[in-house]
Amino acid sequence: MAHIKVPEGVPGIRSLVMFRPETGKPLYELAQVLLRDPSPLTPAERELIATHVSSRNDCMFCMSSHAAAARELYGSEGEVVDCVIQNVATAPVTEKMKALLNIAGKVQISGKAVTADDVAEARKHGATDRDIHDTVLIAAAFCMFNRYVDGLASYTPTNFEDYVPMGKRMATMGYVLPHPQPAN
Amino acid sequence: MAHIKVPEGVPGIRSLVMFRPETGKPLYELAQVLLRDPSPLTPAERELIATHVSSRNDCMFCMSSHAAAARELYGSEGEVVDCVIQNVATAPVTEKMKALLNIAGKVQISGKAVTADDVAEARKHGATDRDIHDTVLIAAAFCMFNRYVDGLASYTPTNFEDYVPMGKRMATMGYVLPHPQPAN
Repeated sequence: MAHIKVPEGVPGIRSLVMFRPETGKPLYELAQVLLRDPSPLTPAERELIATHVSSRNDCMFCMSSHAAAARELYGSEGEVVDCVIQNVATAPVTEKMKALLNIAGKVQISGKAVTADDVAEARKHGATDRDIHDTVLIAAAFCMFNRYVDGLASYTPTNFEDYVPMGKRMATMGYVLPHPQPAN
Repeated sequence: MAHIKVPEGVPGIRSLVMFRPETGKPLYELAQVLLRDPSPLTPAERELIATHVSSRNDCMFCMSSHAAAARELYGSEGEVVDCVIQNVATAPVTEKMKALLNIAGKVQISGKAVTADDVAEARKHGATDRDIHDTVLIAAAFCMFNRYVDGLASYTPTNFEDYVPMGKRMATMGYVLPHPQPAN
């Protein structure tokens, strides 16, 4: 059960933004700008970074839902998502993505863990300032979302199947604020 | 030097939102709603939570600037800020604030570190669902802001005096997006 009174049966962050829509608004706007609006990284690559950080933070809800969105966006190459969750070093991603996922993993530990060498390695494989900026901010933002969802013990579905329609919705509709009250 | 090309001499997050105003907008809106708009916690108490988390994340820029804002807002009781940075257990704050700062400290480690007992202790001293929600989200948000600022190695002034006018501005004007380009 969640630590505060939120709409029952509504999973993860959706229940929290129903409880407090004033903070939900900038949180959903941030997710939409970071994960869907124009960026040199594709929406699939950005969902992959979100999944990797959520996995490292052991946030089951965010990892499962963003992995489902990433699988949907990668389409026939969706297996890359589970490879990244298991081991970035051996995952079938470009050297540029590997270097950016490494930076995201450092951000998950601490901002200070990102070194000039980490950034140089990403640049060597073609990463621009925008790639590096967006990677760091996505990773940092998921260190927030993960803590928000788990710090209030919001409802986390445990069946893999529950995340499939969620991933489809996130992939097609993006981040749209739910109504303040659940429909009933 | 910052890891990406941002306006020179502009400190911390301000240089980053000048680089990327599209993400700066929801980030500043989130800070304003969380730290200034209506809440059962005073702006001073909320800046204290932000300072505590930034201190635990060893983020010099965020800790120094939010400590300066908190000192300004606490006025003649400003010494409470440095007491909290040193040791929450012995700081001259209410039992309710002590319990909320404990929850914020748990969130800094991981969302999962917050226990039902931590929440019950806060409730025993009068904390409501809104107090608990806002504390968790402020703590989570500073785990993002701290990583954003340090993960891109943005400029961090090292003189205590540089933060005093910053704190005054934050206390009186709140979180207002800087212009995309530095005035020159």
